[in-house]
Amino acid sequence: MRAVRLHSLDGPESLVVEEIAVTEPAAGEVLVRLHAAALNHRDLFITRGLYPKIELPVLPGSDGAGEVAALGSGVDGLAVGDAVLMDPMLGWGDDPEMRSPASTILGMPRAGTFAEYVCVPAANVYRKPEHLSMEEAAAIPLGGATAYRALFTKGRLRSGETVLAPGIGGGVQSFVLLFAKRAGARVVVTSSNDEKLARARSLGADVTVNYSTEGWERQVKAAGPIDLAVDSSGGETIARVLGLLRPGGRIVSYGGTHPTATLKMFPLFWNELSLIGSTMGSPNDFHSMLALWTSDLRPAIDRIYALDEILEAMRRMDEAAQFGKIVLRFPKSVDARHRSS
Amino acid sequence: MRAVRLHSLDGPESLVVEEIAVTEPAAGEVLVRLHAAALNHRDLFITRGLYPKIELPVLPGSDGAGEVAALGSGVDGLAVGDAVLMDPMLGWGDDPEMRSPASTILGMPRAGTFAEYVCVPAANVYRKPEHLSMEEAAAIPLGGATAYRALFTKGRLRSGETVLAPGIGGGVQSFVLLFAKRAGARVVVTSSNDEKLARARSLGADVTVNYSTEGWERQVKAAGPIDLAVDSSGGETIARVLGLLRPGGRIVSYGGTHPTATLKMFPLFWNELSLIGSTMGSPNDFHSMLALWTSDLRPAIDRIYALDEILEAMRRMDEAAQFGKIVLRFPKSVDARHRSS
Repeated sequence: MRAVRLHSLDGPESLVVEEIAVTEPAAGEVLVRLHAAALNHRDLFITRGLYPKIELPVLPGSDGAGEVAALGSGVDGLAVGDAVLMDPMLGWGDDPEMRSPASTILGMPRAGTFAEYVCVPAANVYRKPEHLSMEEAAAIPLGGATAYRALFTKGRLRSGETVLAPGIGGGVQSFVLLFAKRAGARVVVTSSNDEKLARARSLGADVTVNYSTEGWERQVKAAGPIDLAVDSSGGETIARVLGLLRPGGRIVSYGGTHPTATLKMFPLFWNELSLIGSTMGSPNDFHSMLALWTSDLRPAIDRIYALDEILEAMRRMDEAAQFGKIVLRFPKSVDARHRSS
Repeated sequence: MRAVRLHSLDGPESLVVEEIAVTEPAAGEVLVRLHAAALNHRDLFITRGLYPKIELPVLPGSDGAGEVAALGSGVDGLAVGDAVLMDPMLGWGDDPEMRSPASTILGMPRAGTFAEYVCVPAANVYRKPEHLSMEEAAAIPLGGATAYRALFTKGRLRSGETVLAPGIGGGVQSFVLLFAKRAGARVVVTSSNDEKLARARSLGADVTVNYSTEGWERQVKAAGPIDLAVDSSGGETIARVLGLLRPGGRIVSYGGTHPTATLKMFPLFWNELSLIGSTMGSPNDFHSMLALWTSDLRPAIDRIYALDEILEAMRRMDEAAQFGKIVLRFPKSVDARHRSS
């Protein structure tokens, strides 16, 4: 099969498309023939060695959708040809609130979805929502679970609240917007890009603020008190957003481009603000997230690339040029399941 | 009556003991003849003008216990002579989760407990736990409610968890220790003072660590993963304590001597840590806190002073020399309820 692999940690340019053997599904596993995959920042960070314990070669990719190609022994309830997508969280463990230290994400160390086939535990395989295309289904797993956990499990969003999503554009933030609207919240988004703000409005954003303009914080404040912010910028954004929260408000951080944040203590305790870390999602989060995808909800897809265009796709994400998910599509017509053995 | 009042914001030295009129209870209010009051850092901060909207003169004091001296019209369920203490939170409002912006604390602007009589809304008056002396009862309201809210309402402490209380010695931290032990938690405390650590052990602390010694963080780590930290230092302590929490752990901050804290973002979101602001307590918190005071629980009292010794008492708190609450005792034999009018 054709797969994207990484043999050195020199950035996305070191990704190569090559022919490798398909892994047979072991007991309890499912082999999925992928129709589409999607990119996450994690994939980019891995190419730069920004994760601990990277073992080369890596076959990255956490998101994918396709059809069941083969079942390992002991797998019930699925048949060859079923349209599926995968929860990329592997080995969450027994604590519903916190993943096990032994948990991993599909796409390192386990071979991921930037390939024509992927082999995953049966418990991670879910039926594709019928109304979604393979590309749309491939777009939702990691970002959707991350957004779900941030908004609901950690952020405890309630209907009627106002959510702030700073830096709209990336995959997770696009899910934050969609899910928060679905939950009956008002949504305020910021970006430095007016096109992204227009796109966010078309997806339901109630208030859009260009943060490169003078006085953007006043514009957010004018939109009304913020109950919950969901952020992946960290740094100065965290400090500023804390100042925009209503008393008792909370900010959920699921990432941080900036390594540190300096917070004022007095407003934090006096206004009973909460800063809550969140990352990925539990099996419960994934299950609940999938249930949101009823027939009138579709993910924001930015662009669709061929597998050979992986570097172009990665560069688009690296430049933060996208709105929504960047997807890889695999040719459906070719039977790529020839073993190299 | 004799009362401690503040006519200028020049620090605790500007507090004067003087004779002023007793306020008659209005409809729905209760006049309490105080037998004891207790100090809080808030009182000290007020003398230095470190609160907004201070109107002089101030009669400070948030904590007190005594006997009902007179009832305003419409007050049921209380009789003159009943032994009571007071919830110092005034006007919490309708939201059980967050106090109203109009809420205030007894002792500014409403005349407080550093006086022989205090007048409060009947809803704030609770029967004194029978086994507690007046001095002990006076010690618990503000600090107890603050500790209760931090540990349980905000910190969601569960039996069997390990709690870290940095800087044991102050009133609230002594309640954190007592309440966490009562809730079935293990408790780790730190101090730079070995006498305070010994006192904490006598009150049930499982592990005590002197943070002025080399490698104190390793000693805390050796005590096992921290589920919940309750802190009022802010600053560097917050950053360090975040590094001691288990994945999924939380730190509740109810104060901050240091105005800012610089946090590392990656461990915060990757380990799903929470930093939660908390302050004072709701009526529900106060009610639940009082229910903890069954017959084998007594507050840590540091020293008891006469009203005339207010400056000495304040200085002891200012120097952080105390362990537990600093109490003011009023002479019981004198009928001080003569009006100046």
